[in-house]
Amino acid sequence: VADREQILKIHSRGKPLAEDVDLAHVARATPGFTGADLEQLLNEAALLAGRKDKKAVARREIDEARDKVLLGLERTSLVLTDDERRIVAYHEAGHAVVAWDLPHTGTLEKVSIIPRDRSLGVTQQLPKEERFLFDKEWVLDRLTILLSGRAAENLVIGRISSGAEGDLKEATSLARRMILDWGMGDGLENVAFGDDNRNVFLGSEIGRMRNYSEQTAARIDADVTRIVEDGYDRAGELLVARRAVLDGLAAELLEKEEVGADRLEVLLKRE
Amino acid sequence: VADREQILKIHSRGKPLAEDVDLAHVARATPGFTGADLEQLLNEAALLAGRKDKKAVARREIDEARDKVLLGLERTSLVLTDDERRIVAYHEAGHAVVAWDLPHTGTLEKVSIIPRDRSLGVTQQLPKEERFLFDKEWVLDRLTILLSGRAAENLVIGRISSGAEGDLKEATSLARRMILDWGMGDGLENVAFGDDNRNVFLGSEIGRMRNYSEQTAARIDADVTRIVEDGYDRAGELLVARRAVLDGLAAELLEKEEVGADRLEVLLKRE
Amino acid sequence: VADREQILKIHSRGKPLAEDVDLAHVARATPGFTGADLEQLLNEAALLAGRKDKKAVARREIDEARDKVLLGLERTSLVLTDDERRIVAYHEAGHAVVAWDLPHTGTLEKVSIIPRDRSLGVTQQLPKEERFLFDKEWVLDRLTILLSGRAAENLVIGRISSGAEGDLKEATSLARRMILDWGMGDGLENVAFGDDNRNVFLGSEIGRMRNYSEQTAARIDADVTRIVEDGYDRAGELLVARRAVLDGLAAELLEKEEVGADRLEVLLKRE
Amino acid sequence: VADREQILKIHSRGKPLAEDVDLAHVARATPGFTGADLEQLLNEAALLAGRKDKKAVARREIDEARDKVLLGLERTSLVLTDDERRIVAYHEAGHAVVAWDLPHTGTLEKVSIIPRDRSLGVTQQLPKEERFLFDKEWVLDRLTILLSGRAAENLVIGRISSGAEGDLKEATSLARRMILDWGMGDGLENVAFGDDNRNVFLGSEIGRMRNYSEQTAARIDADVTRIVEDGYDRAGELLVARRAVLDGLAAELLEKEEVGADRLEVLLKRE
Amino acid sequence: VADREQILKIHSRGKPLAEDVDLAHVARATPGFTGADLEQLLNEAALLAGRKDKKAVARREIDEARDKVLLGLERTSLVLTDDERRIVAYHEAGHAVVAWDLPHTGTLEKVSIIPRDRSLGVTQQLPKEERFLFDKEWVLDRLTILLSGRAAENLVIGRISSGAEGDLKEATSLARRMILDWGMGDGLENVAFGDDNRNVFLGSEIGRMRNYSEQTAARIDADVTRIVEDGYDRAGELLVARRAVLDGLAAELLEKEEVGADRLEVLLKRE
Amino acid sequence: VADREQILKIHSRGKPLAEDVDLAHVARATPGFTGADLEQLLNEAALLAGRKDKKAVARREIDEARDKVLLGLERTSLVLTDDERRIVAYHEAGHAVVAWDLPHTGTLEKVSIIPRDRSLGVTQQLPKEERFLFDKEWVLDRLTILLSGRAAENLVIGRISSGAEGDLKEATSLARRMILDWGMGDGLENVAFGDDNRNVFLGSEIGRMRNYSEQTAARIDADVTRIVEDGYDRAGELLVARRAVLDGLAAELLEKEEVGADRLEVLLKRE
Repeated sequence: VADREQILKIHSRGKPLAEDVDLAHVARATPGFTGADLEQLLNEAALLAGRKDKKAVARREIDEARDKVLLGLERTSLVLTDDERRIVAYHEAGHAVVAWDLPHTGTLEKVSIIPRDRSLGVTQQLPKEERFLFDKEWVLDRLTILLSGRAAENLVIGRISSGAEGDLKEATSLARRMILDWGMGDGLENVAFGDDNRNVFLGSEIGRMRNYSEQTAARIDADVTRIVEDGYDRAGELLVARRAVLDGLAAELLEKEEVGADRLEVLLKRE
Repeated sequence: VADREQILKIHSRGKPLAEDVDLAHVARATPGFTGADLEQLLNEAALLAGRKDKKAVARREIDEARDKVLLGLERTSLVLTDDERRIVAYHEAGHAVVAWDLPHTGTLEKVSIIPRDRSLGVTQQLPKEERFLFDKEWVLDRLTILLSGRAAENLVIGRISSGAEGDLKEATSLARRMILDWGMGDGLENVAFGDDNRNVFLGSEIGRMRNYSEQTAARIDADVTRIVEDGYDRAGELLVARRAVLDGLAAELLEKEEVGADRLEVLLKRE
Repeated sequence: VADREQILKIHSRGKPLAEDVDLAHVARATPGFTGADLEQLLNEAALLAGRKDKKAVARREIDEARDKVLLGLERTSLVLTDDERRIVAYHEAGHAVVAWDLPHTGTLEKVSIIPRDRSLGVTQQLPKEERFLFDKEWVLDRLTILLSGRAAENLVIGRISSGAEGDLKEATSLARRMILDWGMGDGLENVAFGDDNRNVFLGSEIGRMRNYSEQTAARIDADVTRIVEDGYDRAGELLVARRAVLDGLAAELLEKEEVGADRLEVLLKRE
Repeated sequence: VADREQILKIHSRGKPLAEDVDLAHVARATPGFTGADLEQLLNEAALLAGRKDKKAVARREIDEARDKVLLGLERTSLVLTDDERRIVAYHEAGHAVVAWDLPHTGTLEKVSIIPRDRSLGVTQQLPKEERFLFDKEWVLDRLTILLSGRAAENLVIGRISSGAEGDLKEATSLARRMILDWGMGDGLENVAFGDDNRNVFLGSEIGRMRNYSEQTAARIDADVTRIVEDGYDRAGELLVARRAVLDGLAAELLEKEEVGADRLEVLLKRE
Repeated sequence: VADREQILKIHSRGKPLAEDVDLAHVARATPGFTGADLEQLLNEAALLAGRKDKKAVARREIDEARDKVLLGLERTSLVLTDDERRIVAYHEAGHAVVAWDLPHTGTLEKVSIIPRDRSLGVTQQLPKEERFLFDKEWVLDRLTILLSGRAAENLVIGRISSGAEGDLKEATSLARRMILDWGMGDGLENVAFGDDNRNVFLGSEIGRMRNYSEQTAARIDADVTRIVEDGYDRAGELLVARRAVLDGLAAELLEKEEVGADRLEVLLKRE
Repeated sequence: VADREQILKIHSRGKPLAEDVDLAHVARATPGFTGADLEQLLNEAALLAGRKDKKAVARREIDEARDKVLLGLERTSLVLTDDERRIVAYHEAGHAVVAWDLPHTGTLEKVSIIPRDRSLGVTQQLPKEERFLFDKEWVLDRLTILLSGRAAENLVIGRISSGAEGDLKEATSLARRMILDWGMGDGLENVAFGDDNRNVFLGSEIGRMRNYSEQTAARIDADVTRIVEDGYDRAGELLVARRAVLDGLAAELLEKEEVGADRLEVLLKRE
């Protein structure tokens, strides 16, 4: 965070900032941004301000620019069917409700069903603090949040869609890393698999070659499947218990397309 | 759609269009076309109009050009035997009848047994709306339509031919994606397989390397086989129930070679 | 056929043809010939006519040239032992008798035991019509004809020779394609295997990589083996029933080296 | 050692050294350093002295420079949460306590939880003597020390974190080498696996290809898993027995961030 | 044969041949020789004749030259121990005795224990006739002859040596081809395995990639092992029955180093 | 041997040799040396003589040069701990005692624990005669000698060290070659495995690709493991029976670092 604030200060020189812009806050809201990302953010914000004939870059432009860098450009020309919009709304609402209930994974920033370059909707979660260590519980919570989109579709729509493809890949990959890299598998604790042969063949993205037996591979598959299923079931249970809230958020999303942090707090808080 | 209409407008500049041409309609009728495809379509249409000494490109030329781009050139010199024509007619009629009965997958445009560059016959289905999300039911419907060509051959001719090779590959591939990518397999729900090692070896078309065990592979095979068999059985049942309609459409195809949307509506509608 | 006749007309310009040459017939007798093959055929025929100081290319030269292009050059210097000639004669006679009994696979043109570039003997079968669709029965008939050479050796000579190597490879390959590509396997009907990874590694001839499990591979092996064995047994039964005819044709082949279509009709026809 | 002292003498020419610098001691404290590493060390030390306007390089600068070369730059800007700091402190304290109890693997030099380029904390152990031969007991002790960080987390925090990833990989790799290279596996003693095919494919870092059967691979996996589990259990038992000392060291680390050899001796010595 | 005689005639032009040279006989004695081999043979013979100041190339020079081309240069400087010479003598004598008893595989030309470039001894067998077809019995006879060298070592010396490495590879390869290519395996008759993927990877010598299952592979291994063991046992039985002859030939080889066709006939003929 | 003497004569031209140098003896003492090795040997010897201002190259220089070429440069700067020196002394003494007891594998030349480039110690054995054939007993004796170093460590020190890594790899490789290449495996006698696919991939050192089944691979592993274990047990038994001699040689090695052939004869000979 401190590093990012420093970089932002450097790149904002010569760019007049409105009084409502707090670079320390911007730094906290941009986890994972590289120096180049931050520079692009400030440039985009200056551009947006210029288009509006504003003399200074205000918080509004900063936020818009951050979304653009983080989530990709909005695709206004892409028109979903009503059925698809309803699926997307419940999918994102599902992510949001479960993410709220597992709060130590981060703070909810925004939920949106405006289609963008890279996805049909987004649930944006800001880490409370930048973490360098993950424990097993934290990883299982992340995994549950990832699967809660589909769990919501299944609960409300009764059908499962291909829209969860990315979530499933990320959840499965987390479950595999728990077992292969982090020694968090049942009966395979403390052992790291597959490391000897990294960078096999011809490039750095080529992945790992198995250095373990078929029997171990079958055991890993069973563990991965069980971990993912448990996460999905847990997401489902959390959603059943908060069905009314889920419906409320989905409805508001269908109406307004985007729901911000303050409104999310009102909608999601438990009595 | 909006994007395509825009592109069509750009490329039709300087090309006089007859009054019956509605670019918005053309855009809707060309799902999946790239900018280059659309440019080629307009050029072909202009060429056809030129050959007929027409001053403006009419809807007729647009349609002809679209078929050429979409389906490949007709091969008038290729002569099938009567037996083969009957097989092709029932194969395409089978696709058409089942596609009609599973309407939310799209609207039937045309059925043809004029041999073309890429196939011996074609059943053209226009999506009602461009979809970005597929649910399990939709995928299973697509799969049933793909298998209905062979199901019709089997029902009427009593023999299965090699002509379904492409359909089988596509249906099997859909069934595999359901399990591997979309988490729609029985007992393998919500898990995504094979993702770690995409782009293994030396190119982008090289496919995926297994990151799962033999045991899981066997389970996936069993699921794929079952999904495909269920789809085939379902196609067969739909055709048995509509045998008279199937015979009627096949007969008309054998006589006229091509049946358009309006006539299909008459032939296929249920009383 | 029409295409080939067209090509023949173009390439025969400037080459005087005798009256007994009918290009439409030549076109029918050259299934699978490319434009280059047809050009070579006409050039060879002109050459042969030139050597005989003939002014026009007659049907005789056309036929000789076609055999040369189709079957390879005769190797007059290659001398087989009597034992080998007997094996080859029964091998080819076996192909011919079974091909006659399964007539819809094509018309017998010629049987020859003159050694050529590419084989020790040949049974030439002309398709009745060019087919674009194969049904299961047709494939099984082809497979039976392929295995009938070895079946004849086994029946009459009582020993099996390495001469069937090419036949076995083609028959096994057909049986594999029935299961992998055409969905004609028992219990594996309608499923296509191995397609995802075509063109694996570095070239177009590199074949397919398995995308199925060991268990499925074992099942495919069992099916392939059974299909081939059934075809071999069927060939054997057909030959036992027509033993006298088989002996007659083999004897005539040993005497005359080559038996043409007309004589085959006399020898092979059933009373 | 003698080699390194020689190299240090050469590179320190022209650089005035304070009286407290003993190059022989520096040589002993830099096991595994290459000539280039030693040159970098002296240059860094000269630089540090220059910044402080010192005329000669004192021991203090040498030590600072050595840490920089050995452990990477300190990252003062990286701020861990209190929870993370506590995990790191117990993790490193765990390494230190177990390393103290298994003294023949080396002398403890320093324990630090100052985040650096390459890790969140470090337990620095100096080999008593440079070894060229490792016996089974020595390897098992190393393995136990590697696993004691996670064992401490589990004992005190009750959760296991991803911070042990590097330790697990190294421990698993040691266990594999015991079995594959050093013939120290149960029932696989004296056999070396995987050697035939070293340098398979295209480069020297490409690792080994299996030349053993699936059955042997499963047996090796079982042995590796058991060896690692035994090491982890042993680390846990050692820590339970020294819980008070572990807590004391962790507390001191949280307060002072770094604990040196002299203070470690006081804290860790058994009564 | 005829081809070779022709080539010999061309290359012998301008080289005076003694009256005892019969090119037709030379052609028969050089099966498998290419045109280049034949040219080299005649050149070597001319060279040998030149060294002896002979005006014409006699049969003697032809024979010497043929051996040099066929078997490689003699290595007079290589000195074997007595023990090794005895092993080689019995090894070659074993080949010769069994080859004599299975006469239709060819006529014995020479047995030699003079070390050459490529081997420590040689049993030269000339095919009676060039064969283009091999039946199962012929292949099994060849395999038995290949294994008879080691069978003789085992019978007489009681120990098996590494000298049979080449024989074993050739015998195993023949057994594999029987099953994979020639459909001569038990229960795997008429099926050809492994053909689809010839030329996998990057060159023509790269061999075949499996297109069959593990289960089939295990069955093929069992068949291969059984075929080889049967051949070895058969070789052993043949040698036990002819032990006296074996001892006689080995003794003569140890004394004279080389035994020609005429003397072999005397030594090996059955009463 | 004769070849090498010839080469030595050529390369020693112009280099004055002392009277005690017998090139025939040098040739015998350099088995496996290439022409280049021999040239390097003579150059090194000339260099050594030059350094000592000798006018002629004496036997002493030849021997020193031979060791340098054969064993690598001595590393005087490398200092082992006392514990490590004791392990190395017993390791080499173990090799020597067992090699003495299995004399037909060669004559002991020297045992040394002076660390060299490539190893911490060396037991040099000169073949009595150059062999071209190995029988099973000879291979098993070599394997026993290879394993006797570790067997001595285990017997005397009670711990096994990583220093046997090279020995284990060589012994395992010999055991594999016995089974795969030389047909000396139990139940797999006379079969050669893995030959079809030599030179797979891209170079000559790339090793072999399996052409046998998993089941056979497991059987080969079991055989390899058993052969190696038997050799290790045999080495142990031989050492137990000669414990006093082993201790004596190790003690002398620790004292003198190197023991030559004459002294070895005194120490090792049986009463």
